[in-house]
Amino acid sequence: MMKLFRVVKRGYYISYAILDNSTIIRLDEDPIKALMRYSENKEVLGDRVTGIDYQSLLKSFQINDIRITKPIDPPEVWGSGISYEMARERYSEENVAKILGKTIYEKVYDAVRPEIFFKATPNRCVGHGEAIAVRSDSEWTLPEPELAVVLDSNGKILGYTIMDDVSARDLEAENPLYLPQSKIYAGCCAFGPVIVTSDEIKNPYSLDITLKIVRKDRVFFEGSVNTNKMRRKIEEQIQYLIRDNPIPDGTILTTGTAIVPGRDKGLKDEDIVEITISNIGTLITPVKKRRKIT
Amino acid sequence: MMKLFRVVKRGYYISYAILDNSTIIRLDEDPIKALMRYSENKEVLGDRVTGIDYQSLLKSFQINDIRITKPIDPPEVWGSGISYEMARERYSEENVAKILGKTIYEKVYDAVRPEIFFKATPNRCVGHGEAIAVRSDSEWTLPEPELAVVLDSNGKILGYTIMDDVSARDLEAENPLYLPQSKIYAGCCAFGPVIVTSDEIKNPYSLDITLKIVRKDRVFFEGSVNTNKMRRKIEEQIQYLIRDNPIPDGTILTTGTAIVPGRDKGLKDEDIVEITISNIGTLITPVKKRRKIT
Amino acid sequence: MMKLFRVVKRGYYISYAILDNSTIIRLDEDPIKALMRYSENKEVLGDRVTGIDYQSLLKSFQINDIRITKPIDPPEVWGSGISYEMARERYSEENVAKILGKTIYEKVYDAVRPEIFFKATPNRCVGHGEAIAVRSDSEWTLPEPELAVVLDSNGKILGYTIMDDVSARDLEAENPLYLPQSKIYAGCCAFGPVIVTSDEIKNPYSLDITLKIVRKDRVFFEGSVNTNKMRRKIEEQIQYLIRDNPIPDGTILTTGTAIVPGRDKGLKDEDIVEITISNIGTLITPVKKRRKIT
Amino acid sequence: MMKLFRVVKRGYYISYAILDNSTIIRLDEDPIKALMRYSENKEVLGDRVTGIDYQSLLKSFQINDIRITKPIDPPEVWGSGISYEMARERYSEENVAKILGKTIYEKVYDAVRPEIFFKATPNRCVGHGEAIAVRSDSEWTLPEPELAVVLDSNGKILGYTIMDDVSARDLEAENPLYLPQSKIYAGCCAFGPVIVTSDEIKNPYSLDITLKIVRKDRVFFEGSVNTNKMRRKIEEQIQYLIRDNPIPDGTILTTGTAIVPGRDKGLKDEDIVEITISNIGTLITPVKKRRKIT
Repeated sequence: MMKLFRVVKRGYYISYAILDNSTIIRLDEDPIKALMRYSENKEVLGDRVTGIDYQSLLKSFQINDIRITKPIDPPEVWGSGISYEMARERYSEENVAKILGKTIYEKVYDAVRPEIFFKATPNRCVGHGEAIAVRSDSEWTLPEPELAVVLDSNGKILGYTIMDDVSARDLEAENPLYLPQSKIYAGCCAFGPVIVTSDEIKNPYSLDITLKIVRKDRVFFEGSVNTNKMRRKIEEQIQYLIRDNPIPDGTILTTGTAIVPGRDKGLKDEDIVEITISNIGTLITPVKKRRKIT
Repeated sequence: MMKLFRVVKRGYYISYAILDNSTIIRLDEDPIKALMRYSENKEVLGDRVTGIDYQSLLKSFQINDIRITKPIDPPEVWGSGISYEMARERYSEENVAKILGKTIYEKVYDAVRPEIFFKATPNRCVGHGEAIAVRSDSEWTLPEPELAVVLDSNGKILGYTIMDDVSARDLEAENPLYLPQSKIYAGCCAFGPVIVTSDEIKNPYSLDITLKIVRKDRVFFEGSVNTNKMRRKIEEQIQYLIRDNPIPDGTILTTGTAIVPGRDKGLKDEDIVEITISNIGTLITPVKKRRKIT
Repeated sequence: MMKLFRVVKRGYYISYAILDNSTIIRLDEDPIKALMRYSENKEVLGDRVTGIDYQSLLKSFQINDIRITKPIDPPEVWGSGISYEMARERYSEENVAKILGKTIYEKVYDAVRPEIFFKATPNRCVGHGEAIAVRSDSEWTLPEPELAVVLDSNGKILGYTIMDDVSARDLEAENPLYLPQSKIYAGCCAFGPVIVTSDEIKNPYSLDITLKIVRKDRVFFEGSVNTNKMRRKIEEQIQYLIRDNPIPDGTILTTGTAIVPGRDKGLKDEDIVEITISNIGTLITPVKKRRKIT
Repeated sequence: MMKLFRVVKRGYYISYAILDNSTIIRLDEDPIKALMRYSENKEVLGDRVTGIDYQSLLKSFQINDIRITKPIDPPEVWGSGISYEMARERYSEENVAKILGKTIYEKVYDAVRPEIFFKATPNRCVGHGEAIAVRSDSEWTLPEPELAVVLDSNGKILGYTIMDDVSARDLEAENPLYLPQSKIYAGCCAFGPVIVTSDEIKNPYSLDITLKIVRKDRVFFEGSVNTNKMRRKIEEQIQYLIRDNPIPDGTILTTGTAIVPGRDKGLKDEDIVEITISNIGTLITPVKKRRKIT
């Protein structure tokens, strides 16, 4: 039972683990190595520390010279889509790309092969309390609140985290060939506040995921889903991710969303996005609209 | 006037420049830095060397303990699509995804926004003489012979190279949402044999690109196009690539293909792919079909 | 008020500070940087830890997978000699080298210039609980229990520690030109168990230094001196050390001894050397006699 | 047959080897590794280069942006003394330290054990064309022109070079305990211009060593000796150096001098020191007198 978080303090990254929801350990090693060691033999190297007010850090992001940040630097972040059971109509709207009469979403839904896409490099990701971005050329960007897994290079699950697979939905809707532009840009990805080890998640298919968008101190959108609605199982997604495609230790795969705020709920500058997943926590990020350079 | 190539010798990477098609210089510095320095002030740091038989290396790939390899390790490789003028029917086949009656390819063709996609990380790329791969689960994989540009972090063109944007066309054809699986895997990308500086390419829109697939010592497919058929200009592609999306120095953007061998011309194990672009050279790579792990 | 110590755990070095003799801090940074930061503004970066049983580590050296080791890796270690007031006869024995009738020790004693010598590189030093060595070709090796200072590159004192300037006295006695062979070899130098910051040492000239040599569980030699007998002041030694001789941050200067066990008290294999200095602690090291390679 | 030299060019160190006094090779690897590889199997990794005007570099030190510098960064430099046959009176002057009537130099001369001392760290060494120093507090500093050997960690000789073991003779003469201050300071050591491999030196005991001190364009002192006068053989010196004293690969041992310019020949600011050893070359260094900081 271990939760990992990381702070930045005067230029130093410092990683911690919370054992059994009580003891805080300062890690002796890189958090990806710590996850691998724990996964191997339930062991963690580090010292018990006091005076780290984790709950306050979660709330205020920064205390004195300590600021919470993303718990690891994942060498690669990948995503999956169309992984949840959904009302068939969600995937069959009029203006969606169709192949011989069936939308591309429906086709993935019914196919053996899942949708897997490259999502981000570490410098494009932010952590708890750090700003996600709306592209300067997007009028309709949505958060995608998702359960994500941290993998080793064999595809073994080292831990779970909350991910916001922020997406410029208007680009994506205009043409599926714009999906990479919709998905990959600076600030396109938030995860954290912690990574929890696999033994904290007895059953990844019974977790509540809740999304709140707060605008001017009021809840502007709220939605939730349980991962028991995931029909494309995580192991299946991983098998396709690593097929002929070697990944480095610490790669993150985010497993798809089922909460879609809708066309009138696009993120705006200064919105706050809050994503909660049971047994993991709440990831809170402000929104920054990028300015057009003219 | 500078061409860069790189060899590996007993575990050491060694980079060279050919000046004015005659003198060979051994670079003092990392080839990406060398490209930046040359771009800045037409200067190159290094020693004139003799005894490097560049022409023989191009032909036999390995001479004694020296093997030619990819000229740089690009931190990111991106691609562009639907950038060439083509017979409209190419983009409007029956079974292609359509949005309100128009194929997604036609839509990009007519749109302001180009298709830009994440193509590869350096470990997924190979160089001249090294094997490109056909996915174990693809029955129809095609080479895509393309002119590629090497960029600095501001999007400035540092040089040009030949790229093979190898693609599992059956996956892509099945569903545009499978594009990342079609495009990104181990051995999905070859480039080289050299990078030429911008002053070697007076006009990037007047270059002949030729593709040959050789099977069992016979030319199995041959096709060619001139870059004067490129209608989505390179600068335009770059502007979209770097919009809200910071890229590192040495990023490669490959600018799209116009030679499509067709459904019966899929690559097979032991094929040889040869791509020639005027003023750059010929990139030759064998093909390796990955085996299914069962 | 800060004491620094360092442990090695499964290949990781981990550094701690004890603040005001009570709180244990795990340092965020390299201990030499921590000493410089503290020296600058009394600040230390790190977390309060619990469960580090410092007193037990001092006694048993190793607890589970944690072993105490030298508190820093000093890039250079220098020594000073003839720095204490002593009975004149100590420096004027019959068989000591003489210049125009005066022994070389007497001459230093009376001279403006102190004796300063190169003592060790970090790999030749050991820490608390680690073995010091007797050269294979020395029959008379003595510990030299000394107060040592840790310096920055300007010669500013960052902290104090206990040092054992182990010396092959028979080599040195045979000929002063053998001094480097007497002084510099693997295991010639021990220091620790901690480095204390300057504010822990109100007056470096009022400290008791005690040396015990334990052989087969019995005290074989015991001697002590107070640093008030030091007549060549530390600042003076430092001024000569850094004259025309730039030193790196973290250099250690050991300030000379006044306890000389005598000719029949040479160290033997399996002896234990204990050196205590008030306000710093006790440095304990076993003795290892090197075997002749024939 | 290989000579190694190194230049610095716009912040890059670049190492070369001259094979058989004709071909110039730019090394693929660190010059210490290159020496070890050559010593192992007469092999060198690198490219033949043209346009390096080695002879002009030797003469003018700097050509355009290329400056010659010390051929390696030796992790440690050690010295030896009293290794040459000399008129007995040289070692028995009136005011030299004596033990029971015999000078310390005579004693070493007659003893089994050689004098071995720590001479320098790499930052205290300079190369061909770079300034050696006279301490601010020395009125009588002499060059000591010596044959030096480059060793691997087993004490095997990898190559030979010319070394100037610059020494503040007045400090040393005042008291042998001041030897380290006489020997170790910034600019105390010059070596180069090349390192030659062992096969360039058929017999290290038949080399002419010549020293010239040039003052205001006139030869102020000139002296020479042949290494056939060395009576403390190099192998013997090495055996004592490495006894109980592990040294890193690339350590230099300088083997002692027999040319002593005398009391009225001390180096002055702006003198030029030239040391020639047959089969190696000529090491030229200007002299810089350090100013007293008051």
